[in-house]
Amino acid sequence: MDASTTDTAFRVCALLFPDFELLDVAGPVELLSLAAGRFDLEFAAQTTGPIASAQGVELVATHSWHEMASADILLVPGGVGTRREVDNAPLLEWLRAASANARIVASVCTGSALLARAGLLDGHRATSNKIAFDWAASQGPRVAWIRRARWVEDGKFFTSSGISAGMDMTLALIARAAGRDIALESARRAEYVWNEDPGNDPFTA
Amino acid sequence: MDASTTDTAFRVCALLFPDFELLDVAGPVELLSLAAGRFDLEFAAQTTGPIASAQGVELVATHSWHEMASADILLVPGGVGTRREVDNAPLLEWLRAASANARIVASVCTGSALLARAGLLDGHRATSNKIAFDWAASQGPRVAWIRRARWVEDGKFFTSSGISAGMDMTLALIARAAGRDIALESARRAEYVWNEDPGNDPFTA
Repeated sequence: MDASTTDTAFRVCALLFPDFELLDVAGPVELLSLAAGRFDLEFAAQTTGPIASAQGVELVATHSWHEMASADILLVPGGVGTRREVDNAPLLEWLRAASANARIVASVCTGSALLARAGLLDGHRATSNKIAFDWAASQGPRVAWIRRARWVEDGKFFTSSGISAGMDMTLALIARAAGRDIALESARRAEYVWNEDPGNDPFTA
Repeated sequence: MDASTTDTAFRVCALLFPDFELLDVAGPVELLSLAAGRFDLEFAAQTTGPIASAQGVELVATHSWHEMASADILLVPGGVGTRREVDNAPLLEWLRAASANARIVASVCTGSALLARAGLLDGHRATSNKIAFDWAASQGPRVAWIRRARWVEDGKFFTSSGISAGMDMTLALIARAAGRDIALESARRAEYVWNEDPGNDPFTA
């Protein structure tokens, strides 16, 4: 999957669940939406309808999971809701199936705990946010967790550290899928200063 | 309004309208939600219910405008929908009434075009995003528009440049309302690198 393989839009499925972190979804979605029409965005949850974020405001899930089994790109947010969702067996099963079909699987913050719990990150390098790092790491004992990273790319998996780090990761994802010029243009349109170095992590204690 | 005057939560009203820019709302809301419980967030539109952002995803407005006449802080996003809303006389009337009651009125991106069109920025310094700057400025010929600014503070009015600049502005707003330590803690929890200098605007051509 690179800029030369296609000019059609990639189908992105953003996962929603109760108490997801708002910016974990909205930051990546904003940047993807500014990327020259190369990404079509859908929002999927266990059931359709409004899903309350950890910030209170509700986003509307337009699809249920089973309708989104074949997205090109999965976006998995974090948030306090992940503490419950790591025990949601149907969600983990769907993540495994959808990841098998996806070309890129991306998580923000504690979203990587869900991917880890589903077994998807076994043998892969990954990161998570700072405040819940030990908890996230405990969800995947066979994952090579990296504490100092703005984000980590390993094969099809992109995992970012906390909340706003998802925006830097998303621009790297756009660069991989659609080319760096489109990523730079998306950042410019959002007036976002891209930290383009995944190893530049100012929040490691 | 400063950190010493109160320990109660400020009531924040985020305005929604069709085709608002997602991150203009979600960025500030995320940071406010991480600010030690000092901000209570409500989402108001002309009518309650789901409101589609310019990015497609819908956020749910929990209140109609008339229920939010007395918020402490108003947050006005931009987005392509502002091109229509500058001609929405009931919205402009509500903005004037709500601003009179508010202690802080903040806009992101072309949200300042709405404030300008309502006459609220007359005689004030203000900014807007880069791509639509000339259009925004045309909505308020008596505004002292500042092209090079990450954000501008003038009295109760905080106006930011494009999209992600609203996050830097919001941290300044948190600092004014609740103290700089709380703003820094919010940024740390969001793993957000705060550009704390409103004159540091990398996106001025």
